[in-house]
Amino acid sequence: MTLRDGSVYLIGAGPGDPELLTIKGHRYLSQADVVVYDRLVNKALLSIPSEFCELIYAGKRKHLHAMSQDTINQVLVEKAALGLKVVRLKGGDPFIFGRGGEECDALDAAGIPWEVVPGITAAQGAAAITGIPLTHRDHNQAITLITAHRRSGRLCIDWDLLLQPSQTVAIYMGLSVLSDIVTGLTERGRPPSTPFTVVSRATQPDQLVLHSTLGAILEHPQLAEVSAPALLIMHHRASHLSAPTIDCNALFARSCGSLSNQLAHQDG
Amino acid sequence: MTLRDGSVYLIGAGPGDPELLTIKGHRYLSQADVVVYDRLVNKALLSIPSEFCELIYAGKRKHLHAMSQDTINQVLVEKAALGLKVVRLKGGDPFIFGRGGEECDALDAAGIPWEVVPGITAAQGAAAITGIPLTHRDHNQAITLITAHRRSGRLCIDWDLLLQPSQTVAIYMGLSVLSDIVTGLTERGRPPSTPFTVVSRATQPDQLVLHSTLGAILEHPQLAEVSAPALLIMHHRASHLSAPTIDCNALFARSCGSLSNQLAHQDG
Repeated sequence: MTLRDGSVYLIGAGPGDPELLTIKGHRYLSQADVVVYDRLVNKALLSIPSEFCELIYAGKRKHLHAMSQDTINQVLVEKAALGLKVVRLKGGDPFIFGRGGEECDALDAAGIPWEVVPGITAAQGAAAITGIPLTHRDHNQAITLITAHRRSGRLCIDWDLLLQPSQTVAIYMGLSVLSDIVTGLTERGRPPSTPFTVVSRATQPDQLVLHSTLGAILEHPQLAEVSAPALLIMHHRASHLSAPTIDCNALFARSCGSLSNQLAHQDG
Repeated sequence: MTLRDGSVYLIGAGPGDPELLTIKGHRYLSQADVVVYDRLVNKALLSIPSEFCELIYAGKRKHLHAMSQDTINQVLVEKAALGLKVVRLKGGDPFIFGRGGEECDALDAAGIPWEVVPGITAAQGAAAITGIPLTHRDHNQAITLITAHRRSGRLCIDWDLLLQPSQTVAIYMGLSVLSDIVTGLTERGRPPSTPFTVVSRATQPDQLVLHSTLGAILEHPQLAEVSAPALLIMHHRASHLSAPTIDCNALFARSCGSLSNQLAHQDG
C-alpha cells in the first residue's frame, strides 16, 4: 500500500479546485519524498505531503520557463535514482496536454519505474461549472480536445478536426489566438450562430464564463477580463442553456488544512 | 460545507478503481440521503454513504434496462422534491457518454437544483494503465472521444471524425461493432499499420489490454477474452510502446472499509 522507493508517480492535480484531486492522488502525495509541481497546480495541494517532503517548482509560463522540459526530466530521473519516492504533480491530467508522455519516455530511457494517476482535465471542470454536457445523445456523439499550440510555438491547427458538427470541441491554450481560431473556423464554414463559450480558471474562486457564439465572441464586452489559462468550447447547448443552480464557489473558503481535516472527519 | 436539501449531485465515479473517485465525490457521497447508482459503478463506493442512506440501483445493460432513462429522471426529481440530498452516481464522467445532460434537463424542467462533480473517464483510466499518452507534442495534438452507439441503437459513426492522423481516437462502447469499425476505417484510408489497442475493464483487477494494429486486431488470439465495457484506442505509440512498470493492481485487495480508513489515517 506504500509507494516504491526510486519510482516516479505522475499525478493529475485536476483543473483547480483542490477537491477534484482523486483519492489515489491524495494518498500518493501524502507519501512522497519529493514533489515536482507545475504553475497551474493549486498550492493548497502542497500541504498534503509531509513536512519532510522536498517541494520543487517546475512552473512554466509562456516564453518564460522556470525549468525546461529537459531539466524537469533530468530532475525526475536524478531524484528517483537516489531511491526517493518522487511525485510529479501536473495540472489537469498528465496525459492530456500535460507532456506526461515525454516524461515517461525519459524515465523509460533511464530505467526508472513510473505510474500515472489520471486527473480531471480542464474540459471536464469547465463542463461541470457551465452545465454544458461534452456529449449528448440528441446533439453530439463525440468530444474533441485540441490544443492551439504545438512545440514550434506558432499556431498550427488541424482544422479538419474542428469542422464536423456532430461533436463538441474544447480548445486548450487558445486564448491568445482566439481571433485566428474564430476566423479560421468561420472561413471554413462553421456557422456564426454556433454556440461558443470561453471559460477562464474553471472550478477556481475567480472563474469566469462567457457564453456567446462563434460570430459574436470577439465582441463580447467581458472578453478583455479573461485571463489564461482559458478554455474555448464550441458546442450545441446555447439555445436552452442552463447553468448549475448550486453555487460551486461556496466551498472554496477552506484552507489546505481544512481539506485534510475534512477527509479525516468524514471517515473517522 | 454540507449538501443542500432537495438537490441532486451528479457524481462521476471514475473508470473502476474506487480510489479514482475525487475527494469531492467522496465527501458528497458521505453526506447523501439517497444514492441512485449505475451498473458500472464500483460497488466498493456504496459503503461510503451512511447506513441510513437509501441505495437505488438504476443499472443498465444493453437491451435490458433495470430502469429506463425517463424513470431514472423521475426518481431523481421525486426524491429531491421530498427534500432529500440526492446523489446520482455514474461510471466515468457524468458529461462524457453519461447522459448527465439529459438528467440535468429533467431536473431543470422540475426546478430542482443540481451540481456536477466530474469523474475520470474511461479513456483516462486506459491511458494511465497502458502508458499511451492521449496527446503528445511530437505525434498528436488532439484526442477525440466518440461512441459507436447513439439513441437509435444502430451503428452510426461520423467517420470524418476518425480520419485525421493528428489525433488519438478513443471509441467507447465499440466492442460489439469492432469489425464494422475496423472495416469502416480501413475502407476510408486509415493505414492497417495504425496502432490499435483494446482495453477492457481499465483500472480494475481483471483489466485486459490487447496491443495490435488496425489491420491485425480482429485476428488477435485473445480478442474472444475481452468483455464489455471495453475501450478501443487508435493512437501513435506502438513502435516504442512502454507500459507503466509498476503493478497497478497491487492496490486492489482492500475492501471498501479500508478505503475510508486509509483516508482517515493519512489525514489524522
